[in-house]
Amino acid sequence: MFRGSSLPKYFLISQEIIQQIQSGKLQPGMKVPSENQIIARYGVSNTTARKALLETEKSGWVVKIKGKGTFVRSGRVLRSATKILSFTRNMVEAGMTPSTRVLERGIVPGGYAAVINGRRYAMKGPVYRIRRLRLGDRIPMLLEERYICLELCPQIPGDDLEGSLYHLYESKYGRRLIEIHQMLHALIIDERYREHFENSEAIPGFQLQGVSFCGKEIILEMECSIYRGDKYSFAVRALG
Amino acid sequence: MFRGSSLPKYFLISQEIIQQIQSGKLQPGMKVPSENQIIARYGVSNTTARKALLETEKSGWVVKIKGKGTFVRSGRVLRSATKILSFTRNMVEAGMTPSTRVLERGIVPGGYAAVINGRRYAMKGPVYRIRRLRLGDRIPMLLEERYICLELCPQIPGDDLEGSLYHLYESKYGRRLIEIHQMLHALIIDERYREHFENSEAIPGFQLQGVSFCGKEIILEMECSIYRGDKYSFAVRALG
Repeated sequence: MFRGSSLPKYFLISQEIIQQIQSGKLQPGMKVPSENQIIARYGVSNTTARKALLETEKSGWVVKIKGKGTFVRSGRVLRSATKILSFTRNMVEAGMTPSTRVLERGIVPGGYAAVINGRRYAMKGPVYRIRRLRLGDRIPMLLEERYICLELCPQIPGDDLEGSLYHLYESKYGRRLIEIHQMLHALIIDERYREHFENSEAIPGFQLQGVSFCGKEIILEMECSIYRGDKYSFAVRALG
Repeated sequence: MFRGSSLPKYFLISQEIIQQIQSGKLQPGMKVPSENQIIARYGVSNTTARKALLETEKSGWVVKIKGKGTFVRSGRVLRSATKILSFTRNMVEAGMTPSTRVLERGIVPGGYAAVINGRRYAMKGPVYRIRRLRLGDRIPMLLEERYICLELCPQIPGDDLEGSLYHLYESKYGRRLIEIHQMLHALIIDERYREHFENSEAIPGFQLQGVSFCGKEIILEMECSIYRGDKYSFAVRALG
């Protein structure tokens, strides 16, 4: 496997382990090769073997359990990018317990606008802005910022915003989302996000910008959220 | 804007500039605020103003032109995640000239497998593997690895692989892709990818894993590619 590549060996070994996880050869809960097994299999030093395991751990695919070894994680959440799904339901499907920390909430008089998928969408002010940290099994999973149409949800400033907003829109305001246009950007979640994500190292992430409709051209909310890339992957289906 | 936030000022200013680009207030080709304008507007030091512009530049949304100022980039490519589109056509739509560097090609006797959107897909060996670097206006945009079904494309080892494979599948082998299942992961493209992406600093990126069908349950190819996140964003539409 090392032939012709100028990449460091520990990195290539880590890539091979991740490939085995991605291919299903190593399943969630299974043990990945130990330091000694890596040394024997690839003929590398123990420093290289240790770095390979550390690298694999940093990718988010495995978790090290002290005195036990390194195991394939089951905690990666797959989120459909083409189906509307609340965080709450997504967590329950992934077998995790969701919780929410409301960080900020208030009226923005000036409204909100964003260019999404090449088109500019604007919400006239005043709109209601909420910033929340969403957690799964008490681990910070995503930092969301949502701008809600006050005309369609007039009592939202007094509502309990700890749970699913989709549920609130439906149950209290009789509004159901029919379509969401989203754009996924890549970003690096570094020390500046430590306050929220409690990360000691830079982790890869997604920035998701979206506009949600509850009727033809009727915007119910817009969103700008940050998802941890070591916890989340997005599933997509494309048609020809 | 600084109220209640523990994030550094330069970062918040940079975020505000990016928000103005995302909202369409600052359009491609427009000049972003200069160092002096930032100092005057936010009441910060010139060090903070310089760091704010540098931070904005690092995000990929703007480009600094020596002696002229910092401008909103037009070079970000929007890629539909729900429509099958070749890199070549995607580049042409974005107004860029596509080119390709074939890095490796050869037969893999053992086949290939990956878990995509929760299901394991396997291609029996032998399969044909190609690694290519795809460029737009000579800038490395993505590093792709594709595994092609030799049974469906028996002469591929002798084919010219500089252009669109989708086009080759159709024109030579009469195979048209009807559906692709994909998974988007986030990753950090750091110095280990410098060989290909020529990046001096870590940039955010996407890893895209996919399986492509040319008929019901007939896999034509599988893919594992890395997209630069400072050049690419993915567009998605979700339905309720």
